[in-house]
Amino acid sequence: MTIADRWLLPDGMDEVLPPQASRMEELRRALLDLYHLWGYDQVMPPPVEFLDSLLTGTGTDLDLQTFKLTDQLTGRMMGVSADVTPQIARMDAHSLKREGPVRLCYCTNVLRAKADKHQGGRSPVQVGVELFGHASLAADVEILRLALESLAVSGAGEIHLALGHVGIYRNLVVAAALEPEAEQAISAALALKSPSQLDEAVSRLISDAALANMFRALGTLHGGPEVLEEAREAFSEAPQAVNDALDKLHELYQGVSAEHPEVSCYFDLAELRGYQYHTGMMFAAYVPGYGQALAKGGRYDDTGKAFGRARPATGFSMDLKLLATLVLREPDNDGVWAPADEGQNGLSEAIQTLRSQGRRVVQALPGQRSGAVQHYCREQLVPGDNGWIVEAIEPST
Amino acid sequence: MTIADRWLLPDGMDEVLPPQASRMEELRRALLDLYHLWGYDQVMPPPVEFLDSLLTGTGTDLDLQTFKLTDQLTGRMMGVSADVTPQIARMDAHSLKREGPVRLCYCTNVLRAKADKHQGGRSPVQVGVELFGHASLAADVEILRLALESLAVSGAGEIHLALGHVGIYRNLVVAAALEPEAEQAISAALALKSPSQLDEAVSRLISDAALANMFRALGTLHGGPEVLEEAREAFSEAPQAVNDALDKLHELYQGVSAEHPEVSCYFDLAELRGYQYHTGMMFAAYVPGYGQALAKGGRYDDTGKAFGRARPATGFSMDLKLLATLVLREPDNDGVWAPADEGQNGLSEAIQTLRSQGRRVVQALPGQRSGAVQHYCREQLVPGDNGWIVEAIEPST
Repeated sequence: MTIADRWLLPDGMDEVLPPQASRMEELRRALLDLYHLWGYDQVMPPPVEFLDSLLTGTGTDLDLQTFKLTDQLTGRMMGVSADVTPQIARMDAHSLKREGPVRLCYCTNVLRAKADKHQGGRSPVQVGVELFGHASLAADVEILRLALESLAVSGAGEIHLALGHVGIYRNLVVAAALEPEAEQAISAALALKSPSQLDEAVSRLISDAALANMFRALGTLHGGPEVLEEAREAFSEAPQAVNDALDKLHELYQGVSAEHPEVSCYFDLAELRGYQYHTGMMFAAYVPGYGQALAKGGRYDDTGKAFGRARPATGFSMDLKLLATLVLREPDNDGVWAPADEGQNGLSEAIQTLRSQGRRVVQALPGQRSGAVQHYCREQLVPGDNGWIVEAIEPST
Repeated sequence: MTIADRWLLPDGMDEVLPPQASRMEELRRALLDLYHLWGYDQVMPPPVEFLDSLLTGTGTDLDLQTFKLTDQLTGRMMGVSADVTPQIARMDAHSLKREGPVRLCYCTNVLRAKADKHQGGRSPVQVGVELFGHASLAADVEILRLALESLAVSGAGEIHLALGHVGIYRNLVVAAALEPEAEQAISAALALKSPSQLDEAVSRLISDAALANMFRALGTLHGGPEVLEEAREAFSEAPQAVNDALDKLHELYQGVSAEHPEVSCYFDLAELRGYQYHTGMMFAAYVPGYGQALAKGGRYDDTGKAFGRARPATGFSMDLKLLATLVLREPDNDGVWAPADEGQNGLSEAIQTLRSQGRRVVQALPGQRSGAVQHYCREQLVPGDNGWIVEAIEPST
């Protein structure tokens, strides 16, 4: 192994250096403070759980993303958390066991076995909130508003919000009594946004002409709020459950746009990300210049069922690493450079006093004659007539 | 699998619930702020690295503690970080490549394959600082003082500091030209604090009578500062390097006790924790009532050598989870309970205003008639004559 090899990090397993790490820390604090003000209590999920528990009720996508470990104490398989949300659902269902609505937030490292172009690196810092115990539209609106506030706190300017509702597609699938394989062929065609492929799959798999046309319509129902009106028409003959989902999506849009008229909304009724997992509204928030969504969330009722307590649930999450790149941070340059301790009278006390006033003081080590600039110090501590004083460092000529 | 099984967490892989998670977050902020004021820049090491890189120059203890994973992208073995310190040394040696002293701090989750009674659970949150590039006593004193300040910030009252220097034992081993097996027999006897076993090993393995007596003396050299004087006598005939180490330990003691006379110091010249790793002074800080050290550190020069840049290094680390138990946190009870949004005039604005003033407002969801107390609210938002007002909640009778 050469020295160069030792320096390589695995793809997507990043380190964060100064000053970017401080920027992430500031953002972490700003977000957790925001969630606190909205009534969300912080929790810290375990970084590793037994696989049975970690993957219960979550679907195959998460299984493939989860690093597996053998527990040397029990011989049982464990998994490293790849998504905090199901863990928080377990904590709500079992560890907290509170009645009524429960609001929780978190910020923690997760690991993913595979890089995913939609998810960034393999070592995101996942930050987010979950609201359990209430199936209302009000809960979904609160979550959506909090996601928009989170992006504003992070320094995002223009925000594009993509909205969908899994109930539209799901209830059409039920009405058409599609077998899993047929359903997968149609969802694959929808994901590809290929009208010809969708038309081929629908013609082959759906005999009812009215339903077939509704599936074909799904492939075109994406765009601005006018999509909701087009959908009303396209689904006028659809089962009531499809129209209920459409109603909820419409109300959600009204609830969000009343508080955030500046946010531009985009609808994609064929969006099926997290289809195995979500049970209601789904959203993703984008910022111009970023290909990936910065915040993703939605409703996922009943995840806690496997833990003995089915609960309504809605929430969203973000990757703090990605979010922190929204604002490039300049170092603060507000440090005070102090000379090395060589027994000078009162130096140690002067440094203590400055630090207790919230000033950053970087003390030279014996023999260290320069370094103020590298340590972001524009001032220095020097002996004055009446004790130590802080003065500006003259730029070297 | 029963539902009860799904609730089990692996031994030592803990979750942190409210309000303890907030307590940990507060402590994390207080410590990172302290390190910032002392000139330490925050970094975030990668949670996973290739095993070659992660374990280079660290010894077998860390290898046994490290969970191994296969990288699906390259087929190479990776390890989950079990100790951040060697990672920070690599970051200093390679990623930052700065000349002169470099001060870094971090706070991050690590995972350990085995539970260790000296280290707490298997999922500690490691927080600490490292000072690279300066071999002086001043650097060691700064680190020790910062460890004591960290414990004070965490709410520790009485602190007991155990001090040692690996150079004393190491140079005696060199003088006696001990083979690795002989050295291990003696260090095992020292660790057991068994005079008879030590005497047996020394008599069997060390022929030089003067050196043999020095090894026997090591077994008794633990206690208060008077130990340093006893050691002077016991090692009067010892090689210069042994006495140099003793001098450094004495100066370190003077440097720390000058600033922190309230801390009681304990010396154990046979303390060999991290012997494979440390190269100079070592310390551990204890608080009455806790069996484990709350802060551990020392000098570990040249760890960066394997990465092409040998650098002096000194630092310490703590487990935030353990530290947070020093002060049990009461919930704040400072929330304001707001009614559900049913189109009331000005309610949404009133809530926004309170939150922008830093007040925590927990809003009821439609149909939710109680919950203020469970959400730590002692006040509520009610309609007044001139808009919404905050009033105390009357305790229910």
